[in-house]
Amino acid sequence: MCPSKVAEGGERGWIVPIGGAENKGESPSILQRFVEISGGDSAEILVIPTASQLAETGPRYQRLFGELGARRVDVLDFDTRRDCQESNRLDRIERASGIFFTGGNQLRLSTILGGTPAAKLIRERNAAGITVGGTSAGASILSEHMIGFGKEGSSPQADSVRLAPGLGLTNRFVIDQHFRQRDRLGRLVAALAYNPFAIGIGLDEDTAAFIGPDNTLEVEGSGAVTVVDADELSFSSMADVREDEPVCLLGLKVHILVAGATFNLHTRKASAGKLAKPKT
Amino acid sequence: MCPSKVAEGGERGWIVPIGGAENKGESPSILQRFVEISGGDSAEILVIPTASQLAETGPRYQRLFGELGARRVDVLDFDTRRDCQESNRLDRIERASGIFFTGGNQLRLSTILGGTPAAKLIRERNAAGITVGGTSAGASILSEHMIGFGKEGSSPQADSVRLAPGLGLTNRFVIDQHFRQRDRLGRLVAALAYNPFAIGIGLDEDTAAFIGPDNTLEVEGSGAVTVVDADELSFSSMADVREDEPVCLLGLKVHILVAGATFNLHTRKASAGKLAKPKT
Repeated sequence: MCPSKVAEGGERGWIVPIGGAENKGESPSILQRFVEISGGDSAEILVIPTASQLAETGPRYQRLFGELGARRVDVLDFDTRRDCQESNRLDRIERASGIFFTGGNQLRLSTILGGTPAAKLIRERNAAGITVGGTSAGASILSEHMIGFGKEGSSPQADSVRLAPGLGLTNRFVIDQHFRQRDRLGRLVAALAYNPFAIGIGLDEDTAAFIGPDNTLEVEGSGAVTVVDADELSFSSMADVREDEPVCLLGLKVHILVAGATFNLHTRKASAGKLAKPKT
Repeated sequence: MCPSKVAEGGERGWIVPIGGAENKGESPSILQRFVEISGGDSAEILVIPTASQLAETGPRYQRLFGELGARRVDVLDFDTRRDCQESNRLDRIERASGIFFTGGNQLRLSTILGGTPAAKLIRERNAAGITVGGTSAGASILSEHMIGFGKEGSSPQADSVRLAPGLGLTNRFVIDQHFRQRDRLGRLVAALAYNPFAIGIGLDEDTAAFIGPDNTLEVEGSGAVTVVDADELSFSSMADVREDEPVCLLGLKVHILVAGATFNLHTRKASAGKLAKPKT
């Protein structure tokens, strides 16, 4: 599966993976910015709580996005793959200017939505310019290669991670979330070791990567985004080790970005952005 | 404090930090190699259990090193700073061909031994060619800048780590241990962010860095050694952030080494060593 094709002269919409536990109280900077890039006071946001099995998840985000100034917020749940074909539900996807996946279990999202008309339409709508984001499991689902589950710990082992196909809004990166809080560097690095073409993005809690139409990633929130770039990998033992053995990887590049810093997914260049103070 | 001066024409001895929980049963490859580079069947090993407060720690290593073929193994404990001046104890340091610090609390080692004649003599003996190593807390104490304690989690914060002066056998690296098992990337990276001149070495359990007289590090054991090199750091916000804020660091280089791989602390080059199979 490739990312949906962007129409000539058009621009893909924002892609917004969030590391989970985003601030919903005093400084909801991530959710606020999500509303802004979805159209601000004319935003029509669709909350998809399918990853979660808690009844209150959808209504909670509906209230939050409403308070942050969106014109209209709907909750749209999918319980079965049949739901994902229903024309009434597809119409609501068609109308939205921003789509938000809540947290929960990313395998619920991929097993229910994967390959359905709803998934196809969300991909098309993002390619046509609307914002699509999500938190925790809702972040993992966004990219082509999704971390389904894995082991925790800093050093990668051959069986640290299990990948599954995701929604495929982009294939440029592999996302992991709750990054600082759950020690997931090893599994993210293992995912890259399978095939180093992608860029690893580890999102701390209350931290988001706002990935613009130009493929520049901007950090928002109180934590860090760890970018792992295997482009200059000089050696990998991934193909030669047993499942439970550690993997030897030489030449990884790592950037730890905080709010204000950026990373260009095309050029693979990190920038301190507004953090770099001009010398006086 | 600088590393002890090596006599002209002489060679520093091996420095052997171990990540803790090294195999003491079926495949004691780390302890075996420690005996070998301490002289094999003519090795006289001194076990210093000061970091530990368990009575059985010293005798346990004494038995192990004996079983692995060392000619003589003594346990030498230091309970007070006064003990570190006693001539009888200093004589035993003078005689040893290998000195081994057990695990426990590295601040016990630094507070009791730091600045005493015993510490000075251990530095001199290593500079004169004998092997000095240790596991867990006993690994941390070896270098000039020691991680005293810190917070766990993958992304660095300004207050992730507290450094203390260590034994100073080398100032080329900062060591952290139980690396995969206790999620310590953040605190190691924070330590480097204070001053990027050093190289960070994160040791998994049952994994050791054998650092030879030529400053080439060789990995032994079942886990990985994560080498973090901040030499090409292009930006750091360490000086500008509040204590509990994450630090922005661009351009870190990371190598994950397993048994057989090497890293040269002079040239900062990683090599797959014998892991790189010749093409046939």
